[in-house]
Amino acid sequence: MKIAVLGHGTVGSGVCKILSEENNKISSAAGKTVELGYILDIKEPENKYGSEIFTKDFSDILSDDEVGVVAECIGGIEPAYSYIKSALEKGKSAVTSNKELVAEKGAELLSIARAHNANFLFEASVGGGIPLIRPLYSSMNAAGITGISGILNGTTNYILTKMFRFGADYSEALSDAQKLGYAERDPSADVLGWDACRKIAILSSLVWGKTLKPSEIPTEGIENISADDVKTAEQCGFSIKLLARAKQLENGKIFAKVSPALIKNNSPLAAVNDVFNAVLINAKTTGEVLFYGKGAGKMPTASSVIADIIECAKTENNIGNIYWEDPEESVFAGSDSFAERYFIRADYDFSKIIPEAERISANAFLTPALTETEVSVLTDKISEHGKLLSKIPLFE
Amino acid sequence: MKIAVLGHGTVGSGVCKILSEENNKISSAAGKTVELGYILDIKEPENKYGSEIFTKDFSDILSDDEVGVVAECIGGIEPAYSYIKSALEKGKSAVTSNKELVAEKGAELLSIARAHNANFLFEASVGGGIPLIRPLYSSMNAAGITGISGILNGTTNYILTKMFRFGADYSEALSDAQKLGYAERDPSADVLGWDACRKIAILSSLVWGKTLKPSEIPTEGIENISADDVKTAEQCGFSIKLLARAKQLENGKIFAKVSPALIKNNSPLAAVNDVFNAVLINAKTTGEVLFYGKGAGKMPTASSVIADIIECAKTENNIGNIYWEDPEESVFAGSDSFAERYFIRADYDFSKIIPEAERISANAFLTPALTETEVSVLTDKISEHGKLLSKIPLFE
Repeated sequence: MKIAVLGHGTVGSGVCKILSEENNKISSAAGKTVELGYILDIKEPENKYGSEIFTKDFSDILSDDEVGVVAECIGGIEPAYSYIKSALEKGKSAVTSNKELVAEKGAELLSIARAHNANFLFEASVGGGIPLIRPLYSSMNAAGITGISGILNGTTNYILTKMFRFGADYSEALSDAQKLGYAERDPSADVLGWDACRKIAILSSLVWGKTLKPSEIPTEGIENISADDVKTAEQCGFSIKLLARAKQLENGKIFAKVSPALIKNNSPLAAVNDVFNAVLINAKTTGEVLFYGKGAGKMPTASSVIADIIECAKTENNIGNIYWEDPEESVFAGSDSFAERYFIRADYDFSKIIPEAERISANAFLTPALTETEVSVLTDKISEHGKLLSKIPLFE
Repeated sequence: MKIAVLGHGTVGSGVCKILSEENNKISSAAGKTVELGYILDIKEPENKYGSEIFTKDFSDILSDDEVGVVAECIGGIEPAYSYIKSALEKGKSAVTSNKELVAEKGAELLSIARAHNANFLFEASVGGGIPLIRPLYSSMNAAGITGISGILNGTTNYILTKMFRFGADYSEALSDAQKLGYAERDPSADVLGWDACRKIAILSSLVWGKTLKPSEIPTEGIENISADDVKTAEQCGFSIKLLARAKQLENGKIFAKVSPALIKNNSPLAAVNDVFNAVLINAKTTGEVLFYGKGAGKMPTASSVIADIIECAKTENNIGNIYWEDPEESVFAGSDSFAERYFIRADYDFSKIIPEAERISANAFLTPALTETEVSVLTDKISEHGKLLSKIPLFE
């Protein structure tokens, strides 16, 4: 069976490398001979695989009946979407590392895959090299998952870890991350939380079977976290992480949110540092389960693409368990459907305004559980009297 | 398809409960209607499933062609082994939570399963409710796994956590664990490391494809860990865990060991407390990956059995990737094939005996990397001059 790799960038070149270097292992795991059949890119990469497998024209791949799996490593919606759609319509399976595509077009592509008895897999789209998507749709299928809480973005986790370890400012830590290649020159997608938002949208859609759109999820980044927040949190036994969360409420709707959060130091999520990612799953039968590993990087991500290629090559039929649909009405429960405690700092003593709050340092309090609206009312009141310095939910 | 549950004890009754309560979900995931067909036990359990499905005679199950999967939750080698073997020989799949059986008879049962195009799965035998076996044989198939380090026994982890949190003695913490039902009246299998040893034997056999027998693995329990060890370790920024380890050396042989180990507080394993388990995998392509969750307990374990039942019911053919063989000669590399640093305490200052060691407190040192033989020579020397208080490897 031929594999076509679309895009010979960071992830794509890693996929080609593993496909050729570990070919025996992969073929043995797939139960059939698997080979790198095509590399598609806008310009021919300097590659050791021979120029005869290179193409700029996707129809070469589409018309070759020996191609069983298309591995999309281009990124973005187009042309990735059109390529995958037409491959699936021809009964070829498709795998991708493209979180934007899966978050936006997942339901449609899964439905096309099912209709043509092919597979659309995307282990590499969330959590890089961490086996996560497959355990969720196979091992934890009947576990009754009620919540997902993830540190899903390595860039922001690196920045926050740096701030904690060295008392660095946000801007200092960001520029350090940029120097090391952990943050892009325009870091918006990471630091504003969009990347984490797409990933939690994918996990929520997968686990509860209905599309939750990234645009529906309230998303806040880490750009307002200050060295003083970090110092106060640390003194009180907390860490601060950018947390992407989704939980199913009793009415079946989903509460979801991406924001910085205070995490108690004894939580397994507090120990997730640097560019590592982790996802904590709450389930009725298993309790807490956590998956941890490198959330990005060429080889970890390529390794997950390879695992999906093996699964597609091995499985002749549509897997079935991995499926979600676009709902008729939004599954998002609304911002006020969930109350939680908040860490609040101001530049003066505001204890009289919230007498029921717990003081944890001179000017920082933990409020009782409040909804979004309730916490806004409170912070508005605080702002009438002085400067609100921070408002960060407490993860419990 | 009928499922036969063998043994209606803690895990077996949990499996029956999930099978009936989550039947729709399970059938949908399996792609066919699955039902609880038989419960086998030496005496009829008080159950709500009706006495018509109860049997004491395994041949009832064996002769019923509608039974597709046998879920063995009896424990021990016999009669579990004979039941599973005869089921597989009839082409029925078998799943089990029985680590002793998998560690001792895994290669043979996997081979019989393959020969009869059935499956033998055992997700619940290691790590309770943590999805672990399946990610290892599917997602991380071609990741190039080089090492496994696990906190695989909840009882000992509870005891050590208690010693760290409250400065408790070993015997105090053990009796507390017994009161709470976390330790058995005869706690030998847990505290002497045998349970962890069986589990690392299973993981090693699965990952590297050749049986590593529990009896080949040097195994040391936690019964000699003292409150002073804990205090010293804590002051120096370490935790102590019962660690089960296996790593593939360059010659392909396996170094394995079960023993208490010092773990730096910034390691993700250090944050694994109480009855939780965790397994850290090192792989060439993905780097460190960690799986964490409840390693035991009725519902977490039953949940893993259910996941295997679904996999067997769904998959018509032998899965293939999950396989190992008994090697012609032992794969164990020998105790002296690997050197590591040791934490050594004595009741007097022994710095002159090991000048190259790093002093970390008044009477505790970290040695340079030493093999088992080298560390024995050293501790013998120390014992000539005074009392050796502890010798614990440092996990790095």
